[in-house]
Amino acid sequence: MLKVQPLLCALGVLATAQKSIESERLYKNPSYTPKERAEDLLKLMTWEEKVGQLGGARRLFSRVDGKPSFNETALAITLETQNGQIGFGSQLNYASEVLPLANEFRTAQLNNSRLGIPFITVTDSVNGIYPAGGTLFPGTCAMGATWNIPLYREAVTAIRDENLALGVKWVLSPEVDLARDPRNGRNGEMYGEDSYHVGEFATHYINTMQKKDENGYVKVATTIKHFVFGQSSGGVNTASIYGGINHIFNELGAPYIRAFRDANPLSLMVSYATVDQVPMPSNKYMLRKVLRGIMGFKGLIMSDAVAIPHLYTQSKVAKSATDAGLKALRAGLEHELNPAGTAVFPTLINSVDDAEVAHMIDEAVRAILEIKFATGTFDLPLPSVSELNKTLRSDRHLEINRNVSRESIVLLQNDGTLPLRANTTRIALLGPYADVLNSGSYAANNASEHKYGGTIRRSLEQRLGANNVKYKAGVDVISTSTDTSGIPDAVAAAKKAGIAVVVVGSGWSSDTTAVAINRTDGEGFSHPDLSFPGMQQQLLDAVLDAGVPTILVLSGSQTFLLNDSSKRSRAILTTLIQGEFTGDAVAEILFGDRRRARSPVAYDYFPSDEQGGFTGTGRFDWFWPQLTRYAPLRFGFGLSYTKFEFSAPAIARRDNTTVTATVTVANTGGRIGKEVVQLYYRPAVTEIEFPVMKLVRFVKIELAPGESRQVSLSVPIHELGYFIDAEWYVEKGLYNFWIGSSSRTEDLLPYNITLA
Amino acid sequence: MLKVQPLLCALGVLATAQKSIESERLYKNPSYTPKERAEDLLKLMTWEEKVGQLGGARRLFSRVDGKPSFNETALAITLETQNGQIGFGSQLNYASEVLPLANEFRTAQLNNSRLGIPFITVTDSVNGIYPAGGTLFPGTCAMGATWNIPLYREAVTAIRDENLALGVKWVLSPEVDLARDPRNGRNGEMYGEDSYHVGEFATHYINTMQKKDENGYVKVATTIKHFVFGQSSGGVNTASIYGGINHIFNELGAPYIRAFRDANPLSLMVSYATVDQVPMPSNKYMLRKVLRGIMGFKGLIMSDAVAIPHLYTQSKVAKSATDAGLKALRAGLEHELNPAGTAVFPTLINSVDDAEVAHMIDEAVRAILEIKFATGTFDLPLPSVSELNKTLRSDRHLEINRNVSRESIVLLQNDGTLPLRANTTRIALLGPYADVLNSGSYAANNASEHKYGGTIRRSLEQRLGANNVKYKAGVDVISTSTDTSGIPDAVAAAKKAGIAVVVVGSGWSSDTTAVAINRTDGEGFSHPDLSFPGMQQQLLDAVLDAGVPTILVLSGSQTFLLNDSSKRSRAILTTLIQGEFTGDAVAEILFGDRRRARSPVAYDYFPSDEQGGFTGTGRFDWFWPQLTRYAPLRFGFGLSYTKFEFSAPAIARRDNTTVTATVTVANTGGRIGKEVVQLYYRPAVTEIEFPVMKLVRFVKIELAPGESRQVSLSVPIHELGYFIDAEWYVEKGLYNFWIGSSSRTEDLLPYNITLA
Repeated sequence: MLKVQPLLCALGVLATAQKSIESERLYKNPSYTPKERAEDLLKLMTWEEKVGQLGGARRLFSRVDGKPSFNETALAITLETQNGQIGFGSQLNYASEVLPLANEFRTAQLNNSRLGIPFITVTDSVNGIYPAGGTLFPGTCAMGATWNIPLYREAVTAIRDENLALGVKWVLSPEVDLARDPRNGRNGEMYGEDSYHVGEFATHYINTMQKKDENGYVKVATTIKHFVFGQSSGGVNTASIYGGINHIFNELGAPYIRAFRDANPLSLMVSYATVDQVPMPSNKYMLRKVLRGIMGFKGLIMSDAVAIPHLYTQSKVAKSATDAGLKALRAGLEHELNPAGTAVFPTLINSVDDAEVAHMIDEAVRAILEIKFATGTFDLPLPSVSELNKTLRSDRHLEINRNVSRESIVLLQNDGTLPLRANTTRIALLGPYADVLNSGSYAANNASEHKYGGTIRRSLEQRLGANNVKYKAGVDVISTSTDTSGIPDAVAAAKKAGIAVVVVGSGWSSDTTAVAINRTDGEGFSHPDLSFPGMQQQLLDAVLDAGVPTILVLSGSQTFLLNDSSKRSRAILTTLIQGEFTGDAVAEILFGDRRRARSPVAYDYFPSDEQGGFTGTGRFDWFWPQLTRYAPLRFGFGLSYTKFEFSAPAIARRDNTTVTATVTVANTGGRIGKEVVQLYYRPAVTEIEFPVMKLVRFVKIELAPGESRQVSLSVPIHELGYFIDAEWYVEKGLYNFWIGSSSRTEDLLPYNITLA
Repeated sequence: MLKVQPLLCALGVLATAQKSIESERLYKNPSYTPKERAEDLLKLMTWEEKVGQLGGARRLFSRVDGKPSFNETALAITLETQNGQIGFGSQLNYASEVLPLANEFRTAQLNNSRLGIPFITVTDSVNGIYPAGGTLFPGTCAMGATWNIPLYREAVTAIRDENLALGVKWVLSPEVDLARDPRNGRNGEMYGEDSYHVGEFATHYINTMQKKDENGYVKVATTIKHFVFGQSSGGVNTASIYGGINHIFNELGAPYIRAFRDANPLSLMVSYATVDQVPMPSNKYMLRKVLRGIMGFKGLIMSDAVAIPHLYTQSKVAKSATDAGLKALRAGLEHELNPAGTAVFPTLINSVDDAEVAHMIDEAVRAILEIKFATGTFDLPLPSVSELNKTLRSDRHLEINRNVSRESIVLLQNDGTLPLRANTTRIALLGPYADVLNSGSYAANNASEHKYGGTIRRSLEQRLGANNVKYKAGVDVISTSTDTSGIPDAVAAAKKAGIAVVVVGSGWSSDTTAVAINRTDGEGFSHPDLSFPGMQQQLLDAVLDAGVPTILVLSGSQTFLLNDSSKRSRAILTTLIQGEFTGDAVAEILFGDRRRARSPVAYDYFPSDEQGGFTGTGRFDWFWPQLTRYAPLRFGFGLSYTKFEFSAPAIARRDNTTVTATVTVANTGGRIGKEVVQLYYRPAVTEIEFPVMKLVRFVKIELAPGESRQVSLSVPIHELGYFIDAEWYVEKGLYNFWIGSSSRTEDLLPYNITLA
């Protein structure tokens, strides 16, 4: 069925294959280190074989007529010169369809490689494995919103094992970009806005993914990314940013510095951004001097897709493909990620006689070979379909996923209407996103078939019976639609039911439904307008105008402007990027089976940001967005169905090395619930500006009604500093600490301490 | 009436007065240079007298019971230690009331100064002179929108002469900040978004203001500001920005570099911003190294109001007032601008024994003394009320103001409804901004009395007769109001008239009306939401829903989101920050008496900003805001009542030093009209990223119907470069040029040329 052999023949790969390499060569012996094996292999490789390792065949399969289709054209272009890695292609293919084909391809390629150098399989992995058929988790922003590190490690373990079962040895995660521009359509792929919170999640992700197996092999290599991305022009993913060295070290770079200290990501992806007018793929200063020299990153540096060609096609800082490739190589790029046949590193084959280029290519080949050796790619057998079927969607994975979904939903407003009374039997379920599984850009969501997972509609129908859930979309998801003809019917249904759940949002899924085709969020999207796309606000307003008690459910990770009209809703909750059990979790939460979680939104601005020259005269007061009625909901905030009280905190210095904050948290409400204990700090006076407060530790605890628990959070004093011109500096003197349940003033207890 | 003498007595000033200084001292002799005179005077000054020159009494008069009231409390605090300059205080006082009092104060102070060192009068000056009673011009953004440099020089001449008549020798303008963040409430005080356009206007402003009189005195010293301000966090005026060195030199700093080359601003104001975590008032690197060292600025460096105390009250990078003062002094600040008694430089009196401080204070005192000598402040008589009355609001000034108002209004959309038919006799004039003179934060707009100038309502009533203009506010200007009860009446009036002019907007005026108290724009305001404040959209929608042909008039400089509903208007025009004749100019334009102008909104993004990794698949296309239906109207765009055609351009290189672009413009429509010929360029390939296009020259011409004219724009090749790490670099090779009537692709003719 696959035409691998003829293809390889046609490209002359078979012709160069030799079986003469002695099997006892050092590089074939797993008892040597990856570094030693790579060094040995490198010596045997031809110039063409080396250049070939700098790229790969990224998209093996498209989907045609409901099944995987081998992408010969793309392969024909790349296979001759890009032999480093492969990716699977279409997210709409099922893992179980893809694996046998991929194995056949991998086997054929290996058998025909002169030196027996295997491809390594690299994929994106956000909500789970890249093709369909795995456990569909919520997106990264929803993971961050759980504030639950142990649970997150469980989820990452599940995602790792599903990837391994598919033969994926290398993933293009974690994404540690900070979600600080509300316009960015890619915020759903980020953990949140805070560099510590992001660094914490990313570090656990890397350590869990790269855990070594019983033979010492790294299970799945990770790629920390996108180095470096800030608040881009226009909120656009690929647009330019301006970053001074302090900004880069203290904010944008902080999660990287954390991850390099406490984890060891084997690779790193360079961002699409242009930093201070210099595109990152040619930014020698940022990559060789800052990333390698100061931050000390040791792993492989790869480009984002098509980013190297962009140097001449878009940024216009290179004269040709070869010039772009050379500039990227000199800047420190070692691997080129290209979905189509537009790679430029293969043109380096013509630089065979250039000693400087030859040296840099040796460095680059060493980097990918070391990953292949570290992950056992040379040594371990290819995965089997039977093992795959056992691993994917195991009961344990599904259970973890349910738990993540439950903790990732955030309750933003509630006048007591939630939880709904147990005897609620009829609901009007309105809004176009009530029947959409809104799982984001990188989900393997084969939602046009809905084989797995479901929408809020399906979950509520399962709970109440289909007849008791009166579903009306009212309006559609298309942002350009001005059709409001369905609104009266929706209002009528709401009046009849006496209670309405209105699900509105903004999203994208990778399927072929209206949401996918008419997407309004996700990678590549920037929001000049933060209102609900299309006529969704009109639907919500009409229901509220009719006086029907309304629960507003927000779907997707766009930042939504909640206007005064929307706030008339009795309760508001947000689902962020959904997983397959998000619908079920919403149904549980509506009826009070489940409890709180929290949502990120930028709280850590500088002290001078919030005020200007004049105060107190009314007419002259300043309007920092955090302080007005337009203020975003604060970082760390989220409501619960029960009530928690914090005792006065005790903060102590120990041995001049550690600060420990202790507080007793009591559940004084009537339900079991979870609370996130958050510790913030700032040195009172600093050499350069420091945020008004900065998260430094957190922990999530569960308490039964009446239960109380003492929680201690410790921080080494050395961690309480910041960078000045890329050098770490720790203040002496007065420090402010706050401990509480969110970054809102009213949720925090202050405590001052002097550190000598 | 003034209690100056007792006040000065109480402060001990009289006690130290000595008349013993020989009148023939060098510093009293105008035949010496300002530098020589300052040097001589400095030697005679006591330590306290020196420190006193570092600040001033900023707000002499408040307004109580409709007349100026001497502000004894503020003076008592500052007079002893801050003797450098004075400002007038309340904008609501009339110039003719203020001058005699100010003269009395200045005379008393001079008579009691031991060395006869006069105050210098410093004021803001945006729409005209700072107190009321002068010619009220439109705001800076509206000036920029005229694209008419000769007319602007006339306006600045008028503003200068009105200031001089009032004894103002130093103004806190020009503001060269770039209006690049649509959320910033202060955009109305800026010329626009483009650094060349801004630099051009600012350079002409400085040269016109600082023109020397027949005795060689600088007429009015200028203050270029706010060094340096970029796209700040949250669009907030005082918030932090991140700027790499390339960003600062090529974009934010470009107008400064231009002004330092072609003009000589005698002073510069430091911004409130924190640049890369270092507040500008303590930013030694940016002030001593970049501004003084690399950019070569020679004039006085002043703080913005209360900005030095902010170092310890807000930024928390100083431990005390004295520490803040020392940090600012070391960073290069030479003068402190403080409206209240919170100055910190006076605390430097305690540093009398510190040689480093003493040296820096000598430098600072020299700087202000040189301005005083240069402007004739020591030598020229105080102005008289009779001369003031002759100068303010002269016929010539009013005529210039009418011309500026006419050219500052921009026609954004027109289906042919405008100009209105001459036989139009009835109009429904709707919207709360139809009866507001929306002149911005810094206007001396005594609008509660409406002594001068008028609103659009008044102008239309004068033209058509009060009975023929049916005015209904419909809704109010208060952003938190949800009262829509006036809308039905407004719609009824529109239906009856058959045509509606709806004036909606956002603004502030310095008067005591609802707009002032409930302001929604201006300094200190940031817009999380770009829609019309309050219920104004609802009013507009209701009129449009009723099918009445509608002219939408935008009032104020907020960036407005024009949604699909608003675009149903037959025509849209924007007035920006209004002057006293803006209402008249709107009436003229509605009836076709007048013609086009243009508006700035960021067109000069980097090539890589507008695209990402994927194109052509529909689902993956990128959504750069400039390319979508949400695109802002492009820089340089504006409609006309006539039609212009451009011939194919000829672009030639001359002597390897100059590029000249020549085009023939023809008026092919039926009316006389003005057109702005704009020249843009970019080097095809650059070392670091360069904008997709950049304005480099423009000229505004007027053509009668049928008339055509050849226009040539010349640029030295040396100007076609950019900074890399603060060093100027000019590419060789292919350049793209475009010439046309706006930065829109469809309005431009391309031309390529190779420069060796």
